[in-house]
Amino acid sequence: MRIMLTVAYDGTAYHGWQVQAHEEKTIEGVLNSSLKELTGEDISVIGASRTDAGVHALGNLCVFDSASTIPPERFVPALNSILPPDIRIMKSEAVDSDFHPRHVNTRKTYRYGIYHGEICPPMERLYRHHVYGPLDIGAMQEAAAYMMGEHDFAAFCAAGAQVDSTVRTVYDVHVETSENGEHIDIYVTGNGFLYNMVRIMAGTLLEVSRGRIALSDIPKIIKSRDRSGAGPTLPACGLCLVGYDFC
Amino acid sequence: MRIMLTVAYDGTAYHGWQVQAHEEKTIEGVLNSSLKELTGEDISVIGASRTDAGVHALGNLCVFDSASTIPPERFVPALNSILPPDIRIMKSEAVDSDFHPRHVNTRKTYRYGIYHGEICPPMERLYRHHVYGPLDIGAMQEAAAYMMGEHDFAAFCAAGAQVDSTVRTVYDVHVETSENGEHIDIYVTGNGFLYNMVRIMAGTLLEVSRGRIALSDIPKIIKSRDRSGAGPTLPACGLCLVGYDFC
Repeated sequence: MRIMLTVAYDGTAYHGWQVQAHEEKTIEGVLNSSLKELTGEDISVIGASRTDAGVHALGNLCVFDSASTIPPERFVPALNSILPPDIRIMKSEAVDSDFHPRHVNTRKTYRYGIYHGEICPPMERLYRHHVYGPLDIGAMQEAAAYMMGEHDFAAFCAAGAQVDSTVRTVYDVHVETSENGEHIDIYVTGNGFLYNMVRIMAGTLLEVSRGRIALSDIPKIIKSRDRSGAGPTLPACGLCLVGYDFC
Repeated sequence: MRIMLTVAYDGTAYHGWQVQAHEEKTIEGVLNSSLKELTGEDISVIGASRTDAGVHALGNLCVFDSASTIPPERFVPALNSILPPDIRIMKSEAVDSDFHPRHVNTRKTYRYGIYHGEICPPMERLYRHHVYGPLDIGAMQEAAAYMMGEHDFAAFCAAGAQVDSTVRTVYDVHVETSENGEHIDIYVTGNGFLYNMVRIMAGTLLEVSRGRIALSDIPKIIKSRDRSGAGPTLPACGLCLVGYDFC
């Protein structure tokens, strides 16, 4: 039986999703050992997104095969009783035996969270990137609109990443702000993302809002396919994989 | 010169505010050692609230005397460059040389945060108490109204606490909920609080919302002065000292 888990985690204490050669603590590694403890089986989960060190998730997905007689939906309470509290299984369900979470068409949504104010309150520090000074949120929203659609996003890909194609479709980019302006959330939905793409997009939008990159330069930066024209890669702590929609 | 600091902290990693006999890490201890590093002086701050282990603050206050030539408002950036990121100085200002934060009339506000849902998202776990099952928020709000005013709050005081009087004035108790109902915040403002009083008040309101304590029993519980009739002391992680108003 193939089971799909929806997994939420606070990535602060982890070296990312993927099991590492050295014994660093990873989300995947902790899931595998918890499934071993629960079922007695040697299980290696297949994740939908291999999030980086320090990145959070509300709805990453993974699948695994098990001969266990545990009903699919019972993996939620069973695993949550074993897992540390910074990893939670939000949902578990049976899927087709050939279902692979990276070989299906999905829309994936990330959120990049910014704390905008002079001093970052301690309770925000692990989940938001701290920014101070005047920001033009309207310009940020206009720049976001330029990023939507099918584009070659090579300018928004970390140098050295090896991929067949750097063309992706971004269905939506929008910016939400709290009433007091302290919380700025950049939501990006796409059919897939290059390495560090959302963190570079967020860094570019932030530079636009600070007036350091002109709004009208965004189409040129995209067209250039040149990483050096885009903004900086923002820190991992602000990034959260919100979830997946199956197309 | 006497300086007053407004201090925010994530209490998760601390054994509370007050310096302990054994070498546990406390907010007060870290502030004292940071002030020593900054000024070279042996400084013992005087805190307004000695919050318990695991309790958070957005606006605790403390004062100290210093012969340093650092301008009062410059203690904010100077201390924040030394302090760990889970403690932040939000404000620093000069006060009268005889000002003592526990010997003035103040209104103090606490917030008790609850996450209401089947599974607590990992990013909420350090700052909210997790509760699942039906809750009657309307009843909680009605019960909160009974707690307002000047009362003998002995029934809402941890056993064994030694105080001259258990009479306090609660100016306001109200409950705020997020649109989706997942976040429940109980705000309590008073002129002072007994040991564990807010956590017991919150526990009592929660029992009312679950139908385990009758709304009409709240006045009787207050009148009884009997701790056993009130609800449980909720965990420290949900409690946050929001701040002070000087009367």
